Amino acid sequence: MRIDEDRKYMARALELAVRGMGHTRPNPMVGAVIVKDGRVIGEGWHEQYGGPHAEVNAFNNCTEDPKGATLYVSLEPCSHYGKTPPCADLIIQKDIDRVVTAMVDPNPLVAGKGIRKLRDAGIFVTVGVMEKEAKELNEVFLKYIQKHKPFVLYKAAMSLDGKTACHTGESKWISSEDSREEVHVLRGCYAGIMAGAGTILADNPLLTSRTEGMIDPVRIIVDGNLSVPLKAKVFQEPGKAIVLTTTSADETKRDALIKNGIDVIIADGDIKGKVDLSAAMTGLALKGIDGILLEGGATLAADAFEAGIVDKVRIYAAPILIGGKDAPGLLGGKGADTIPEAVRLKNITTLMSGSDLIIEGYVDHKEESPKEEPEKSEEAHDEPASDLPIEKGEDEKGE
Amino acid sequence: MRIDEDRKYMARALELAVRGMGHTRPNPMVGAVIVKDGRVIGEGWHEQYGGPHAEVNAFNNCTEDPKGATLYVSLEPCSHYGKTPPCADLIIQKDIDRVVTAMVDPNPLVAGKGIRKLRDAGIFVTVGVMEKEAKELNEVFLKYIQKHKPFVLYKAAMSLDGKTACHTGESKWISSEDSREEVHVLRGCYAGIMAGAGTILADNPLLTSRTEGMIDPVRIIVDGNLSVPLKAKVFQEPGKAIVLTTTSADETKRDALIKNGIDVIIADGDIKGKVDLSAAMTGLALKGIDGILLEGGATLAADAFEAGIVDKVRIYAAPILIGGKDAPGLLGGKGADTIPEAVRLKNITTLMSGSDLIIEGYVDHKEESPKEEPEKSEEAHDEPASDLPIEKGEDEKGE
Repeated sequence: MRIDEDRKYMARALELAVRGMGHTRPNPMVGAVIVKDGRVIGEGWHEQYGGPHAEVNAFNNCTEDPKGATLYVSLEPCSHYGKTPPCADLIIQKDIDRVVTAMVDPNPLVAGKGIRKLRDAGIFVTVGVMEKEAKELNEVFLKYIQKHKPFVLYKAAMSLDGKTACHTGESKWISSEDSREEVHVLRGCYAGIMAGAGTILADNPLLTSRTEGMIDPVRIIVDGNLSVPLKAKVFQEPGKAIVLTTTSADETKRDALIKNGIDVIIADGDIKGKVDLSAAMTGLALKGIDGILLEGGATLAADAFEAGIVDKVRIYAAPILIGGKDAPGLLGGKGADTIPEAVRLKNITTLMSGSDLIIEGYVDHKEESPKEEPEKSEEAHDEPASDLPIEKGEDEKGE
Repeated sequence: MRIDEDRKYMARALELAVRGMGHTRPNPMVGAVIVKDGRVIGEGWHEQYGGPHAEVNAFNNCTEDPKGATLYVSLEPCSHYGKTPPCADLIIQKDIDRVVTAMVDPNPLVAGKGIRKLRDAGIFVTVGVMEKEAKELNEVFLKYIQKHKPFVLYKAAMSLDGKTACHTGESKWISSEDSREEVHVLRGCYAGIMAGAGTILADNPLLTSRTEGMIDPVRIIVDGNLSVPLKAKVFQEPGKAIVLTTTSADETKRDALIKNGIDVIIADGDIKGKVDLSAAMTGLALKGIDGILLEGGATLAADAFEAGIVDKVRIYAAPILIGGKDAPGLLGGKGADTIPEAVRLKNITTLMSGSDLIIEGYVDHKEESPKEEPEKSEEAHDEPASDLPIEKGEDEKGE
């Protein structure tokens, strides 16, 4: 069946796309597979920001003439001149017969124009094969391009009963070595890593990835009163640091940071000395931060959920029960007053990491309308997203 | 392959065994399948305590003469006269060719004698097919017969961040309707349900199963100072109630309970008015309680883990984050001082119940030796448990 074939090659394209993880931002990860007479004749992926697109690499790797072949590409081919010429033109020029893509490019510069151009040239185009997987892979890119704010993943390690330390303060080590290693890789997957002043003052962490081949994230410190000294490791390590603060902070301290090459974003919240995290996110997006790994302590985490900036949660739950009324938990502050007011997660998934249970879910932002389609069928479908100006119809050929 | 065949029919035998859930205690659940020339000719299970064993039912249901057939039975056939004659004799009499059993019966009255008897009669016997699954199915029976104490399952509902209520006390409803319904079924699977005086005084619960066809568990109330009044629902509902208390409690109150048909077990702990839960478990076992569902509040749960009486944990984690330093958590008390002192769980598994994530695991009692073999291979193996007086060897025939 062609649907099975399509899924098979798209799965391969997505697998290739993942190889660009951490290197394409703020571009999406894209993979491409060229299939002729049931054989893969070329593969490629977007390897790094500014480099050739996946389609170009797949064509360059072709072992034979792609004329008449089918191109599988995990994102709609571009139609505009950016850092590279339009891929749609190249596809037409290579005389490709059919293009199968997982999703329409939400980038307003493309947004269906690539598909239109291909169809106008008489190429069959199928949209929506493994769309759910493709959207999940590029969830950071999608949030960034659609909402102009960074995608925020809140990551935490806890015991199964939600404790982040014993009542004595002991916390070494709640999570397994496997999990701790994985977190370092995770850091390399995000443009920024965010922690609060409290965590920096208590642990003086590096906040680096320490994983070969991964780019260290920008270190983002939430410090409304500028209480973290310049000698803290986060300011000493090579690489960029950004401090989110308020006008309540000492101006001399602020100037000292700036003089030392540290970026400062000022965003006053309701309470004196408290950062407006939502506004700060807009500031970070303007600086090119498309995704943030939030490794905050209990206070920052609670503030982040309160501000509605968290998109996804990844909890490393160790198979232990710490207990104790006074042992600290995941989220500080007052917490929800009633159950319906609690932060609700959707699309929960679990996997094991060493002996730890990883629990992932997406924050159910109540203001979002159901058309965000989180539970969409995995089947290929005929209709592209309804707000996009392209004709519906699987394999529709331009007239 | 014969191993695949064996697993297939044993899986069916286990499936049949489950049908006795809640009705066979303190006997184990057992299922049997009789296979001749590749066809199932008889099936049966132990339907209720005192009734015929699984093998007897399977023979009674045979559609043709079982002579020369293979009998699959999830527990070693008995060799002694109990409420029914020995199944081993019946199997020999029916001229069965081969017996495949999942596990040796740990009951000292059987413990390999059934297998020995079959082999002595010239029947091929295979032991250990799907042993892990069979042991899990009868985990309550195994604990009870081996340690002479009830198997305790601690069940709790919490938010993903380990809270059992908001800081305001609001807790309706943390878990989904599916989960709440499931808990009622769960209650019918255990001989006893245990709660602390605090929970009874606060919620005045019924602690019944309310599930058609299920037997209500014995209600066990931990009440060191006898603070729960006789008019509490747990004492008014039909069915048995047992109070665990101490010599510190008022004698008049104790006599009133007994006069009202309520059993009382006295077990003084280290602290005045605090029940010695471990000793109380022995008392409960003597009263025939083989398994307990612990639905305690934070204090009783902490005490139960401290006393080492909990065998298994089943947490219904709702996909919400409640947060708040003062919102109550799963376990009260002081909690562990260091991470290594925390309660450690092993063999973690997860499944979804409605929107809730169910997390299950077994308490890793540090005094247990590794020969408890929690991670044993699922393959059929040749050697029965080494402490049992039967010959090793798959399909070994008696000499």
